[in-house]
Amino acid sequence: MRVGVFGASGYAGREAVRILARHPEARVEFATGSGEGRLPHEDGLARGADAYLLALPHGISGSYAAKLRASQPDAVVVDLSGDLRIPTAEGYQRWYGHPHPAPGLLGAPYGLSEVFADSIRVARVVANPGCYATSVLLPLLPLLVDGRVDGGDVVVDAKSGTTGAGRAPREDLLFSEVADDFSAYAPGRAHRHVGEMEAIVEQVTGKAIEMTFCPHLLPVKRGILSALYLKSSANAAALAGVLREYYAGAPFIRVTEKPPRLSDVTGTNACWMSVHDAAPGRVVVFSALDNLVKGAAGQAVQNLNLASGLPETMGLDAA
Amino acid sequence: MRVGVFGASGYAGREAVRILARHPEARVEFATGSGEGRLPHEDGLARGADAYLLALPHGISGSYAAKLRASQPDAVVVDLSGDLRIPTAEGYQRWYGHPHPAPGLLGAPYGLSEVFADSIRVARVVANPGCYATSVLLPLLPLLVDGRVDGGDVVVDAKSGTTGAGRAPREDLLFSEVADDFSAYAPGRAHRHVGEMEAIVEQVTGKAIEMTFCPHLLPVKRGILSALYLKSSANAAALAGVLREYYAGAPFIRVTEKPPRLSDVTGTNACWMSVHDAAPGRVVVFSALDNLVKGAAGQAVQNLNLASGLPETMGLDAA
Amino acid sequence: MRVGVFGASGYAGREAVRILARHPEARVEFATGSGEGRLPHEDGLARGADAYLLALPHGISGSYAAKLRASQPDAVVVDLSGDLRIPTAEGYQRWYGHPHPAPGLLGAPYGLSEVFADSIRVARVVANPGCYATSVLLPLLPLLVDGRVDGGDVVVDAKSGTTGAGRAPREDLLFSEVADDFSAYAPGRAHRHVGEMEAIVEQVTGKAIEMTFCPHLLPVKRGILSALYLKSSANAAALAGVLREYYAGAPFIRVTEKPPRLSDVTGTNACWMSVHDAAPGRVVVFSALDNLVKGAAGQAVQNLNLASGLPETMGLDAA
Amino acid sequence: MRVGVFGASGYAGREAVRILARHPEARVEFATGSGEGRLPHEDGLARGADAYLLALPHGISGSYAAKLRASQPDAVVVDLSGDLRIPTAEGYQRWYGHPHPAPGLLGAPYGLSEVFADSIRVARVVANPGCYATSVLLPLLPLLVDGRVDGGDVVVDAKSGTTGAGRAPREDLLFSEVADDFSAYAPGRAHRHVGEMEAIVEQVTGKAIEMTFCPHLLPVKRGILSALYLKSSANAAALAGVLREYYAGAPFIRVTEKPPRLSDVTGTNACWMSVHDAAPGRVVVFSALDNLVKGAAGQAVQNLNLASGLPETMGLDAA
Repeated sequence: MRVGVFGASGYAGREAVRILARHPEARVEFATGSGEGRLPHEDGLARGADAYLLALPHGISGSYAAKLRASQPDAVVVDLSGDLRIPTAEGYQRWYGHPHPAPGLLGAPYGLSEVFADSIRVARVVANPGCYATSVLLPLLPLLVDGRVDGGDVVVDAKSGTTGAGRAPREDLLFSEVADDFSAYAPGRAHRHVGEMEAIVEQVTGKAIEMTFCPHLLPVKRGILSALYLKSSANAAALAGVLREYYAGAPFIRVTEKPPRLSDVTGTNACWMSVHDAAPGRVVVFSALDNLVKGAAGQAVQNLNLASGLPETMGLDAA
Repeated sequence: MRVGVFGASGYAGREAVRILARHPEARVEFATGSGEGRLPHEDGLARGADAYLLALPHGISGSYAAKLRASQPDAVVVDLSGDLRIPTAEGYQRWYGHPHPAPGLLGAPYGLSEVFADSIRVARVVANPGCYATSVLLPLLPLLVDGRVDGGDVVVDAKSGTTGAGRAPREDLLFSEVADDFSAYAPGRAHRHVGEMEAIVEQVTGKAIEMTFCPHLLPVKRGILSALYLKSSANAAALAGVLREYYAGAPFIRVTEKPPRLSDVTGTNACWMSVHDAAPGRVVVFSALDNLVKGAAGQAVQNLNLASGLPETMGLDAA
Repeated sequence: MRVGVFGASGYAGREAVRILARHPEARVEFATGSGEGRLPHEDGLARGADAYLLALPHGISGSYAAKLRASQPDAVVVDLSGDLRIPTAEGYQRWYGHPHPAPGLLGAPYGLSEVFADSIRVARVVANPGCYATSVLLPLLPLLVDGRVDGGDVVVDAKSGTTGAGRAPREDLLFSEVADDFSAYAPGRAHRHVGEMEAIVEQVTGKAIEMTFCPHLLPVKRGILSALYLKSSANAAALAGVLREYYAGAPFIRVTEKPPRLSDVTGTNACWMSVHDAAPGRVVVFSALDNLVKGAAGQAVQNLNLASGLPETMGLDAA
Repeated sequence: MRVGVFGASGYAGREAVRILARHPEARVEFATGSGEGRLPHEDGLARGADAYLLALPHGISGSYAAKLRASQPDAVVVDLSGDLRIPTAEGYQRWYGHPHPAPGLLGAPYGLSEVFADSIRVARVVANPGCYATSVLLPLLPLLVDGRVDGGDVVVDAKSGTTGAGRAPREDLLFSEVADDFSAYAPGRAHRHVGEMEAIVEQVTGKAIEMTFCPHLLPVKRGILSALYLKSSANAAALAGVLREYYAGAPFIRVTEKPPRLSDVTGTNACWMSVHDAAPGRVVVFSALDNLVKGAAGQAVQNLNLASGLPETMGLDAA
């Protein structure tokens, strides 16, 4: 399988190249971006491949996906940007502040691999989920489907490593600013992944929700740890059972007794989660993943595997 | 003012010595613990001083406080351990797992300086609050007193630097374990500061509450950032106003527009807080402080100042 | 003493403002740079003050020094840039790649406070030393003057925290790049401080030398640790004695038995050094300082104190 | 190939288990140490295997090697401790302070894989080199053999991540102590690897040398960067050529133009090196490796491969 990677100089694109280099059935046919041996993005469009990973800025990525879809209708296209995640053009306009770059692709399945595997297997275009969204939806969706957790009162406190903020130089991302420090940003309902998460929850459960979501910047390079504070009529043990059953056959998901650590998952495509009793009527759910792997390039390769008829785990580490 | 510091080899005690060294009216008369120039703890009991800071392990600290109270009834004793924070012997037994070491001191005021200044000014023994408890109660108490925040549904996600876990060698606190990592511990309602916080809330509001509290270990040396997810009939602006009014004359408290960062407060006795709208009917409150200063030694000196009739800010930095 | 600070948004300028805020005799009259309450640099030239600290980019800083010298001949001007450090216009051109911006100021004394205090006391313009140069010359100059160390074979391996590289956004200074990493840069004789150090050595000893100097970037925010590998006919104990005698009255210099750590000096204006025996005929000298304090803003204030007739230590911490 | 790992709870032993888990021809037959599923060390001696990796404390490791050698004469034994590295019992006594635990094994080849591959291929017992020693000897030996570098004046300034200091709890290795800090330790000629390096240099060149070696503790988890300051009659380009030729067929060694970074090699079995001109007659050589991989477990597996007739690179990453 020849794979073209668009945007290989950013952290997610670079990780995709790294993962594909060890993939037994894939080979990087070309990579675009800055740096040695890379093509300009435009030139990539003219290069044939069996599959494409797009790690371009939102607005651009979707339009490249549309062009590749038109010119290479049999190729698999996985878009790592936010362009194809929100299922309506109106929702996209609201959260991204500009018109949708590729409305024709809005029906693409959401690439939360374990949840939407059936749709992904038959898709040519896949909307790879956001890193925070993956960490929240993997535990949240099965619990909402189970019915004993109240979707009307979801509170998420999430913490991410710095590679989630990208590689473009910014004063607030300098080592001199981030080291020894910690803070929240975009608190409440301001982060774009809120729109993505709420849309997918509504798609799955049929109910619109409004969640509280506060991301924080951790002084580490990789990893997301999310804490979901949920109202529940079932206790932690019961909900852990729901997750274990839902993910029984899922090689990358592990439901643990102790709260997972970033180091349990960094460098792998795994997502670990745990459930704990809290105040009466409340539970807390932790989930940990590597934002560049399961939160980006790893899940993209997982989706590529699914859409290409390969074993889901090929080229990916579960531990 | 001659001050004796018990337990000066731990991080909090060492910070107390450092702060007192610059205090214009105080002088460290002796310090106990391991290391050059330090006395055995026992020997400190025989040394006269005008005030004592106790940074000994719980169980021991309270019994030293009782001995000093008996032998030096005019001296001010500030206990930085957990021994005097929970107002009943039963509550103490439940959270600390052993009988109270000094039941005669249970009436000592809780040294949350800004909230209980009047009691502290006339006290000879002060129970210095826990670091997490300080970061939570400073924003929480005024909001509960105001009445528009629901004490029955308090969720706190807190993150602390490693000095909060002390200086005794432990494998899980090695640099090789903590760096690049992040995780929760004692989730739900397991941390001792839950008992302390709930007792103080009940004391102030007259209502027993059960809160959700999940502490995390940050890969930084100093600082606590807490996020309080609260149900509220008032919006963020109104609640920020409540806090601004409550802390109008408080030199160490600042209510900010943006979420505070650890670096805003590390090295100082300040606590910064902000309020933000979240999902309908919910707000999120952030509070940041230095666990060794406002969360321990700094607040202890602030209490020492109050109980000694000195200006509250003497020897302490607000920024 | 009213002080104007030019370039207060960089790390050194900001540190200068922070130090001056606690200085008993100084007051920041104005600060230029970006950010709230700061003037454009140009506007600072029209504002009167008793002293000026210049933390502007090289090329610009020197020309501002010349303008202030002309318009305010009685004011003290301390230039933290590299513009006035190399004593000849030819040397400057060689190391900085462009003509000297203020040849009329080339006679300004080099502000290595402990070594050149007499000249600094009577100067109106002072060339504040480079951070690496301070860490190397403080131990090296007395040893060369003593005569038992061979100036013809000086090898320095230096390591600096990231604030030494400034605050302008650069990809290679992002947290995602620097954390968990370490490397040398500008190895051999490429760093500008080589020119500065060799010129000052020649000025002091009368002999031109060519040194080996390899700086490294540490994943810490503050601090420089230099290791000087020296050929010596005297052993470590004798050379430590030379340093102790030379710096007998110097409040900021300490000669230690054990190799100093960054944490011994960060946040202070101190420089700690130690000498150890190595292979026969060789010793290693370590020196540690805070690059933003003794390596920049702290030494600048020390020089300001000297040139203003104030106690050298005023407003500065030795520990 | 069934492999027994002794001492699998330390960082090196754990890394060995991790590497072997992906090795196509090896399988961990048992692992000793603390933790789930591990045997007591003693019990490992009774278990048959085709090869053994020993990551036990010095003094113990050698005696286990001797027992295994006696009971399983056909098995390959790679000892990661310091016990078999120094070729004489006298030298061992001097550097380790106690008698040699297995004098009968003193002839075991030194497992610097690229240099001693021929001896390792036919050995049953291999002395795996120290992490610092690997980083120094890989560039140094070919240059000394070439003859234009002066073995009589070797200065090494080395920096290591914290996993090199092991996993046993120690106050000076706590995150609260190591983070934001940096310092040298055992300066001059005190570190045990000095004895090892000098012995191997003498063995290879026939000349005894006395080197200067100053190790430092970096606030990172993994990686060693060494700077070798060498007297040379040839320039950097010529010496880089010597290294390129010597390591022409070596898959794990790369001679680079720019100074290597830790991040170039962490997680891999690679060692990258570069040579740069310094003061006249001097060059500086940098070498970077991962202390747990090429500096310990990775090189042990490389040696296991060599001694077992497998491809040298099997199960190991070069990048």
